[in-house]
Amino acid sequence: MELAERLLSGDKRAAARLITLVENKDPKAFEILKKIYHKSGNAYVIGITGPPGAGKSTLTDKLVKALRKKDKKIGIIAVDPTSPFTGGSILGDRVRMTDLALDRSVFIRSMGARGHLGGLSESTQAAVKILDLYGCDYIFIETVGVGQSEVDIVKTCDTTVMVMVPGLGDDIQAIKAGIMEIGDVFAVNKADRDGAKRTAREINMMLDFNKADWRPPVELVIAVDNKGVAELLEHIEKHRVYIEDTGEKEKRRIQNCKTEIVDLVQQRLMNIMLDKSNKEELINELSSKVASRKADPYSACELVFENLKVDL
Amino acid sequence: MELAERLLSGDKRAAARLITLVENKDPKAFEILKKIYHKSGNAYVIGITGPPGAGKSTLTDKLVKALRKKDKKIGIIAVDPTSPFTGGSILGDRVRMTDLALDRSVFIRSMGARGHLGGLSESTQAAVKILDLYGCDYIFIETVGVGQSEVDIVKTCDTTVMVMVPGLGDDIQAIKAGIMEIGDVFAVNKADRDGAKRTAREINMMLDFNKADWRPPVELVIAVDNKGVAELLEHIEKHRVYIEDTGEKEKRRIQNCKTEIVDLVQQRLMNIMLDKSNKEELINELSSKVASRKADPYSACELVFENLKVDL
Repeated sequence: MELAERLLSGDKRAAARLITLVENKDPKAFEILKKIYHKSGNAYVIGITGPPGAGKSTLTDKLVKALRKKDKKIGIIAVDPTSPFTGGSILGDRVRMTDLALDRSVFIRSMGARGHLGGLSESTQAAVKILDLYGCDYIFIETVGVGQSEVDIVKTCDTTVMVMVPGLGDDIQAIKAGIMEIGDVFAVNKADRDGAKRTAREINMMLDFNKADWRPPVELVIAVDNKGVAELLEHIEKHRVYIEDTGEKEKRRIQNCKTEIVDLVQQRLMNIMLDKSNKEELINELSSKVASRKADPYSACELVFENLKVDL
Repeated sequence: MELAERLLSGDKRAAARLITLVENKDPKAFEILKKIYHKSGNAYVIGITGPPGAGKSTLTDKLVKALRKKDKKIGIIAVDPTSPFTGGSILGDRVRMTDLALDRSVFIRSMGARGHLGGLSESTQAAVKILDLYGCDYIFIETVGVGQSEVDIVKTCDTTVMVMVPGLGDDIQAIKAGIMEIGDVFAVNKADRDGAKRTAREINMMLDFNKADWRPPVELVIAVDNKGVAELLEHIEKHRVYIEDTGEKEKRRIQNCKTEIVDLVQQRLMNIMLDKSNKEELINELSSKVASRKADPYSACELVFENLKVDL
């Protein structure tokens, strides 16, 4: 059977294989996705993000287990911070999720940034489509980190859960301000720790400043003890109803498509610029000149740009 | 007097003005930088990075104060995680640095990501040039967060200090693995906390796996009490001698120039793609089609690409 058919019939290995093809930028994968893309759009995509140490993975596990009780089919994409030098994903097989990994209705995949020129966002987007076509009811995208690339990924989700934790120190103000507009639902995890209520209060205060129609709820959670998880899931479902009723979901998805198209064009231009032709040679030569102050980067950019135009 | 001349004569307000022009993508700024770029390259650039709550700002402050005792002129660029919706920098005036801000030989600037399409890396690179031309001996780039964009920024530094802290939880393994190759010098801050020595031992173990010529030192630090700061500065100076003697500094700077040129070309292509012409209309139209599954993103990319070629 064809890979596309196998995927649509719910073959887990076909899904895994296709994601690998996507990660390897194999044109075959995108040819398949082109053909069956119109069948996608059924899965609900939930982002789980927050600073390191917030317990995002544990919380994801518990949310997934709660949804499994309702017999939902789940996909989990864990986006890992990776070395820009070695590439590839770090957490690898996510050993801590073994019990979920044994569940036939849960698909778990770690994805890492391969190489400097991005592409992680596109790979993640493609993986979401694949898991959607594979038949997942819910897809979780879990990102470690609070950087711009992670924010970009999480923005593609239907509902984003921002996981906070008490006692993160000085940076917390900056993080909170930066993420306030990203979180649709807030979880203060490790709520048995000192300062949990204060953290929740601070988040609530900041959210009160925001005059959006949807006021994100803030839930105290102890993920390891499964406390507050059911409540959190209810908030997620309420947000889902809200964005579906108001047309916000459609609006978000159009915006996501726009971002994806722009990213794809950008990636394609970069591939042309950095292929092993005379352009890379030119760029290397100019880099040396700029480093030794014989040329400036802005004029170098113009030269590369003119050269690029010829080859498009 | 011209802005360029004022900058070269060490006028602080000229430096601030030029950085603002850069942030606003004012072509004037880049024309000026083109003209005087050949005079740059004298400042030593130090990156301070690590997860939120590690105490990076406090440590930066202490390092700067130590260098001020040697009468060095300092620039500090604080790269803040920002809302992709509102843009701009969050920490703003960095009130906690008031005593340094009063020092005429210290220039402090916060920079935030403006808008989705990046540009922060380019702005930061341009700000480094400006502070270099302004006459700084050392420029610190401090980044909050451990995301890919932050990593990209820190990679442009001559020496990068990775600030860790005990007790960051589960994600710590992933973070450590991801950043091992970025840190030239490691600081375990808040070393009076439980587990500091264990954290240092774990970092040392991971570093032992790496067979690079430079073995990054790991220093226990209590930044608030100024403990270990002098030792850390010594490590930084040793790394400087190492990269200058081995030609590694030159190699790194050439690589940075390459990254910068490629980023600039990319940015330029994006500007062309997203200017308020018929292309944006086309992209919006395609986005709606893709969202409603009447088209797929990969075919949409091809259409935009063909359309773009015509306009280059």
